[in-house]
Amino acid sequence: MTGLFITFEGLDKAGKTTQIARLAQRLERLGYTVTATREPGGTALCEEIRQLLMKKQSERLVDEAELLLFSASRAQLLRGRLWPELDAGHIVLCDRFADSTTAYQGYARGMDLEFIRQLNAYAVGNRWPDLTIFLDLTVEESFKRLGKVLDTTQAEVDRFEIESRNFYEKVRKGFLELAAGNPERIVTLDATHSVEELDEQIWKIVQKRLPRLES
Amino acid sequence: MTGLFITFEGLDKAGKTTQIARLAQRLERLGYTVTATREPGGTALCEEIRQLLMKKQSERLVDEAELLLFSASRAQLLRGRLWPELDAGHIVLCDRFADSTTAYQGYARGMDLEFIRQLNAYAVGNRWPDLTIFLDLTVEESFKRLGKVLDTTQAEVDRFEIESRNFYEKVRKGFLELAAGNPERIVTLDATHSVEELDEQIWKIVQKRLPRLES
Repeated sequence: MTGLFITFEGLDKAGKTTQIARLAQRLERLGYTVTATREPGGTALCEEIRQLLMKKQSERLVDEAELLLFSASRAQLLRGRLWPELDAGHIVLCDRFADSTTAYQGYARGMDLEFIRQLNAYAVGNRWPDLTIFLDLTVEESFKRLGKVLDTTQAEVDRFEIESRNFYEKVRKGFLELAAGNPERIVTLDATHSVEELDEQIWKIVQKRLPRLES
Repeated sequence: MTGLFITFEGLDKAGKTTQIARLAQRLERLGYTVTATREPGGTALCEEIRQLLMKKQSERLVDEAELLLFSASRAQLLRGRLWPELDAGHIVLCDRFADSTTAYQGYARGMDLEFIRQLNAYAVGNRWPDLTIFLDLTVEESFKRLGKVLDTTQAEVDRFEIESRNFYEKVRKGFLELAAGNPERIVTLDATHSVEELDEQIWKIVQKRLPRLES
């Protein structure tokens, strides 16, 4: 018995969290057991790694260490929580996954894409998601939706959110190229559609892939 | 200008900490600036990663995540602290380094040695130590010296120290093979020699490699 592993990717404010919540509700109404989580994070240990990645520190986290911390969190989340859930037949919905590493660290930060490919393969252990929903948004729209979060005088804003427009253009390019290269896994949706429209589109895609419910 | 990067490897209780302290004192008396540190750790961020690795947790840290956390700490320590120190002409002494990852995670835990080689190369960024002192001890002697620390009823003992004799035999084999394969970098010393003898042996080796002191 195996469940279904679905990841959601996209720029900030593309609607990932909203759509995950709606999809989880639909699935639970049908009787599926759903695990909704996020990366980095998802277990106590992974949330500690997330803290190292996200909080502003006096000591700058170097790019190489950042990449390895994301991968460590991923390796732990999968083996410590998601694989057992999938093996129990559950539906796993994950907000960001390995594609984000390729897009943010690889395409946008310009780190070695071939090494990232190997690192992702190692962390993922050849159990890639069954389906990835890429909610595509232009950088302009993402920034507009982020609004005042981009005000850098706000003390607790995540490190990532103060980076430049140019950076996010590269992130988006990364997602688009990943989608083009993995059409069997990644479905691209226009994230400017309404919440309800996207919910319907996602449901049509997911429905076809659902495992049989135990009676 | 470049300093000198020396790492110390070996089983627990081989005398690494003691010899690092003695060597640092000798070097400082001559007027060198010395940085003595340890892995994992050595910066505030790296010490936080160390905590994740060392503390007993209800959630088991999976092997893959452990390997990636060690590498993240290494990448951060080098770029955030040791490279700038070396570039300033300082002498860096480090208690454990990438060879420990190869010996413990690779040889002893049986994780993919080729992936570990790539991961080490990535974290180390081609700035390998100028010299590695491997203090070789039999597992029996290491265990004898550890004494009651191996009493597993002691609550706070590190995860690593409760593992089996068989595990440490593989660790030692790993160090011995690394030394055989890297004779230009790794010097093996018999750690059953007295503290004073080892101190003299190490000093003879290090003296020949010292950078010129600025006058």
